[in-house]
Amino acid sequence: MDRRSFLKTSALGGSAAAATTLAAPAYAQGNRTLTLVTTWGRGLAGVHDSAQYCADVITAMTDGALTVDLKAAGELVGAFDVFDAVSAGQADMYHGVDYYFLGQHPALSFFSQIPFGMNFQEYANWFHHDGGRELADELYSIFGLKAFPAGNTGPQSGGWFNREINSPEDFQGLKFRMPGQGGEVLGKLGASVQNLPGAEVYQALASGAIDGTEWIGPWADETAGFQELTNIYYTAGFHEPGPNLNLTMSLEVWDSLSPAHQAIIENATSASNIWTMSLFMARNAAALQRLQAGGVQLREFPDSVWDAFGQAAEEVVAASMGDDLYARCYESFNASLESSAAWNSRSQAAFSAQRDRVRGL
Amino acid sequence: MDRRSFLKTSALGGSAAAATTLAAPAYAQGNRTLTLVTTWGRGLAGVHDSAQYCADVITAMTDGALTVDLKAAGELVGAFDVFDAVSAGQADMYHGVDYYFLGQHPALSFFSQIPFGMNFQEYANWFHHDGGRELADELYSIFGLKAFPAGNTGPQSGGWFNREINSPEDFQGLKFRMPGQGGEVLGKLGASVQNLPGAEVYQALASGAIDGTEWIGPWADETAGFQELTNIYYTAGFHEPGPNLNLTMSLEVWDSLSPAHQAIIENATSASNIWTMSLFMARNAAALQRLQAGGVQLREFPDSVWDAFGQAAEEVVAASMGDDLYARCYESFNASLESSAAWNSRSQAAFSAQRDRVRGL
Repeated sequence: MDRRSFLKTSALGGSAAAATTLAAPAYAQGNRTLTLVTTWGRGLAGVHDSAQYCADVITAMTDGALTVDLKAAGELVGAFDVFDAVSAGQADMYHGVDYYFLGQHPALSFFSQIPFGMNFQEYANWFHHDGGRELADELYSIFGLKAFPAGNTGPQSGGWFNREINSPEDFQGLKFRMPGQGGEVLGKLGASVQNLPGAEVYQALASGAIDGTEWIGPWADETAGFQELTNIYYTAGFHEPGPNLNLTMSLEVWDSLSPAHQAIIENATSASNIWTMSLFMARNAAALQRLQAGGVQLREFPDSVWDAFGQAAEEVVAASMGDDLYARCYESFNASLESSAAWNSRSQAAFSAQRDRVRGL
Repeated sequence: MDRRSFLKTSALGGSAAAATTLAAPAYAQGNRTLTLVTTWGRGLAGVHDSAQYCADVITAMTDGALTVDLKAAGELVGAFDVFDAVSAGQADMYHGVDYYFLGQHPALSFFSQIPFGMNFQEYANWFHHDGGRELADELYSIFGLKAFPAGNTGPQSGGWFNREINSPEDFQGLKFRMPGQGGEVLGKLGASVQNLPGAEVYQALASGAIDGTEWIGPWADETAGFQELTNIYYTAGFHEPGPNLNLTMSLEVWDSLSPAHQAIIENATSASNIWTMSLFMARNAAALQRLQAGGVQLREFPDSVWDAFGQAAEEVVAASMGDDLYARCYESFNASLESSAAWNSRSQAAFSAQRDRVRGL
């Protein structure tokens, strides 16, 4: 038990039983508590908020008949243990991003994020209307799980660099922090990829132990303080254009719920999804203005660098094609993306480019 | 009563009482029926589906305690009467697009669509996190209403033309069908704007009574059959980049609901919002491929035309600034859009452009 939980228990009289007694009058008899674990530290901007949104609205919509008890990373199990914990029945559900669990199955990448993959709207399209949901059900059921899209950070930034990137060769020997498949891609470009725990990144960049880092986006990046160390910020990145956060339930728990409670959980996650995506958009947009006002220089990688990212990403994503389910996810995901991207570029993207030009946005 | 309703009643024995008796066994005692009217004809692609999604999930999540009875346009009141009907207590809520009701208040445009306005994500951002919701509550409460975003068609297409548009002057004398503020904009460019009922548009284009029309997007446009009449299709349009559909309740009914049922309705609308937006994206994307395969030529307006659209749209949107609430909506809406557009263009749009280029999408 961490210090925060200990203090909270003490304030209620030092016993968990006392806390239960105090809380009980709020809910009718026969209520059921569902334990929600997360891959996020308590209070982590946006992503913990997303998990809390799910917990609060499920509790509210069921009038407490399902009372969701959120245990942040480390409060019941560690961030990287939530998949196994729910799969094994130690908790009822988790909120997190599933690229942490590619060791369990590589196809989890399609339901979290792949480099050069889908944005928020394209993923919603694939999941709800274009075959994604059926493949998710097949994949997660292998582990006794059922997953619903429950949040999205929007596109993550390319990152902070202590020098400009003008060609793919500039990555050779560059000490850069980027986890996951994105890091694999940079490794193919010759970067020395560092997988530092989040708490060590600022100091590593300050000391010169690394030459740069990606983090999340302007809101979280500003909070981390990277603008104090360098003013070269690449806003667009190839690695996480719209990471999907799932609320993933124990299939056994799911099957035990009434149809009404199943409908409540499913719609709660969809509501959380749009609430979370727009929260990140609002906070990132405001933070970007502050960063610019503070002297941060916004940069875009040149085409030659994007080309190199693209070729390396294709190799990384194709590496697991020997797995049948992975290959079927790959086909379905890319067919959907090809279709939605063609419409998007001809409609929303074309409109936005003209609107921003005409209105000077 | 229209013919459809009459036939339905007859089949049940000619009396409404008989229908009630038949339906009753499906739900427990004490259930409450909420009547949902819509601005859509029954079965109208995507938009009726969105209203039906709301009705179904509210009924499902409350286990029938709130049973939503959907009456499509014409079944209880006409499409353009739903605002007044709910305001007057004749129905409990409506699903629709509120630019039909600008005669009630011009600020309803911000909560449906203004030319050169927001897309789906930007509107969600403004509504949920950037001041939109508070202004909506103020505006709708004037009419005894409370509105929630419940769907979006995604960007609507520029439309079908019997000739190419190469300069703003090409609109002079052009007989074009476009309702609402978009039509006002084209009027300023010298077009002869026709506000034909939907059922008459195909014949008017076929006979040459009009030179072109906008409709919705590839899915609905293909169903309407415009590709049989001309093959010149402008995909991006200035007039409706992401029309917001609301589920709007009687404030009196809303206030009478339990907190749990209020939470259910609010989260049902958010879930419907993302479900509907992605439905349109999926169907539009597939239809666009078929239209192209059938020989339709996709076009984009040149910059000079977008500039002319922009100047005229600014005049149309600014015309109601004498109203205090409208002016406050205008300020809030544009401040939010300016902020989110700057982040979007530097992140999601920049990524998508590079991804589509690199991957050849």
